[in-house]
Amino acid sequence: MKPKVAFLGAGRWALALALGLERDGFEVALWEGIESGLERLGRTRSHPDLPPESVLPEAVAFSGNIAGILNDARLVFIAVPSTELAGVVDNAARQLPGTVEAVITVTKGIDPETMERLSVRAARSLPGVPVVVLAGPGIPYGYALGDPTSLVATSEDDAAARKVRDMLTSGNLRVYSTPDVIGVELGAALKNVYALAAGIADGLGLGINARAALLTRGLAEMTRLGVAMNANPLTFAGLSGMGDLIVTAFSAQSRNHSLGVLLGQGRDLESARKELNGVAEGATTAHTAARLGTRLGIEMPIAEQVVAILDGRTKPRRSVAKLLRRSPKEETL
Amino acid sequence: MKPKVAFLGAGRWALALALGLERDGFEVALWEGIESGLERLGRTRSHPDLPPESVLPEAVAFSGNIAGILNDARLVFIAVPSTELAGVVDNAARQLPGTVEAVITVTKGIDPETMERLSVRAARSLPGVPVVVLAGPGIPYGYALGDPTSLVATSEDDAAARKVRDMLTSGNLRVYSTPDVIGVELGAALKNVYALAAGIADGLGLGINARAALLTRGLAEMTRLGVAMNANPLTFAGLSGMGDLIVTAFSAQSRNHSLGVLLGQGRDLESARKELNGVAEGATTAHTAARLGTRLGIEMPIAEQVVAILDGRTKPRRSVAKLLRRSPKEETL
Repeated sequence: MKPKVAFLGAGRWALALALGLERDGFEVALWEGIESGLERLGRTRSHPDLPPESVLPEAVAFSGNIAGILNDARLVFIAVPSTELAGVVDNAARQLPGTVEAVITVTKGIDPETMERLSVRAARSLPGVPVVVLAGPGIPYGYALGDPTSLVATSEDDAAARKVRDMLTSGNLRVYSTPDVIGVELGAALKNVYALAAGIADGLGLGINARAALLTRGLAEMTRLGVAMNANPLTFAGLSGMGDLIVTAFSAQSRNHSLGVLLGQGRDLESARKELNGVAEGATTAHTAARLGTRLGIEMPIAEQVVAILDGRTKPRRSVAKLLRRSPKEETL
Repeated sequence: MKPKVAFLGAGRWALALALGLERDGFEVALWEGIESGLERLGRTRSHPDLPPESVLPEAVAFSGNIAGILNDARLVFIAVPSTELAGVVDNAARQLPGTVEAVITVTKGIDPETMERLSVRAARSLPGVPVVVLAGPGIPYGYALGDPTSLVATSEDDAAARKVRDMLTSGNLRVYSTPDVIGVELGAALKNVYALAAGIADGLGLGINARAALLTRGLAEMTRLGVAMNANPLTFAGLSGMGDLIVTAFSAQSRNHSLGVLLGQGRDLESARKELNGVAEGATTAHTAARLGTRLGIEMPIAEQVVAILDGRTKPRRSVAKLLRRSPKEETL
């Protein structure tokens, strides 16, 4: 038996990873803090967004008691929505056993209030425990089905990132490591903005040339911002940037892409949100990205147009025309 | 009236560009060296791979007389298959009028015999004339339909690249410029190898996670090779690398992707080729890339597996398993 892995949160990504790691021989336990979620988990041992055959085996424990789930764990995954991260980390920190070698966060985002990366927030509550960010092109549905999936692990504690990489690589999961925490975390958060932009282009009926141009120029935009924040520009061409951008922009299961399609078809934000089942983090991140760009003096024309569309200040077709009419320039960063 | 543009070659990309530039006010003329092609052009004024409404207006001249087509031209496009490039350039060089400000090549590839980039071959026959490479995510069908399309121009003569950029940017075409000729030309050629690999994954029934991982790790592979050949690594994250990789891997009209799908479904190269209408350059480029990797001491695991599959030395499913079983590593270049 491989070591014990605890999950805090039982969303679709947590459940898919729990299933995959159990299949690969890990002991797995899940904590869920919301009573209705716990009740559903007990009834179905599954998640409505995963393939129907993805059912947690009896060996996987779950409960609402965080101390019991954490007991003896060597790896702890944080897999809650970004708005709940601080509370869950604080709660876990008080009960973390000495067996834990790393806390792994798969929650993506930048705090819209403080502009802080989420791993920085998590690390503040966990002195002495390595915090590892795990990101990249992993659609939960595909990973649960056995689709070969590559992710990237990174941490201020480089040895911890490499340890997590080596421990988790098995079955259909292959994990790379990189020392560039800033680049990985920014790429994972910002890609939602450009997946949303690609969705808007699709909603307008534009074709693959326009989508590829938006994604590539979006990558250039997030790389420019990342460099101003001390990231390595090449990280954005990797799994948490380009890779995650591709799955988010091309998967029918992406809420950010779906929100873009509805906006491109002429719907306003409120009505589009009502139709979507779940949170599209890209709408919040677009505002954060545009504010960061202004603060750091970085041109972010695509993020600015996405914000203008979200705020109802412009029509999608006018935005595309505006992006095309910009004066010709160097393809630089 | 904008200046005269001459096209040497009348394939689908030449015809789409001719249509678009005529729409944007250029005087346009096409030369076609193959008699059956010329006859078809006279009869249909179109191309079977373009939208049916894409018909060359009467104002567009075409003929098999290269001197007449070149007369008074300020820009000359070379748009012939890579195997014909040398002959056509030599022929044009002897008759090039003094009005020509730049010869623009849209032909992608590396000479499989000499390993020479095609713009280097073209420039050798055109002393004193700037040779500009135009590449990026441009599916002819979409551009002809009016889909916003972004390309990148590059040249050893940087001023010529910027001039071509400024002259061609209009309507639904936006052109960027970069001084990195090596990066643009390698990206444009090598991306076919990884689009083919993504097709193989699709043919095996793998999902979007596997496709995104293959494309991202393919980009890392071509970047490693490019750096060893003095390219700027960031060029590969741009329009001629990532951008063109996306359209080639996700467009149903890509022959390289289609060839991969058939191979992934278990067909051998000969039978797959018979079914495809036209040349899939990626099959040749995969061998060239693997040879370049060996010569320069660059690890190219994906290109090597593509070559092994093309040569019938391994089965696609075994190749995927082999790529997944490689020992965990840093996500570096």
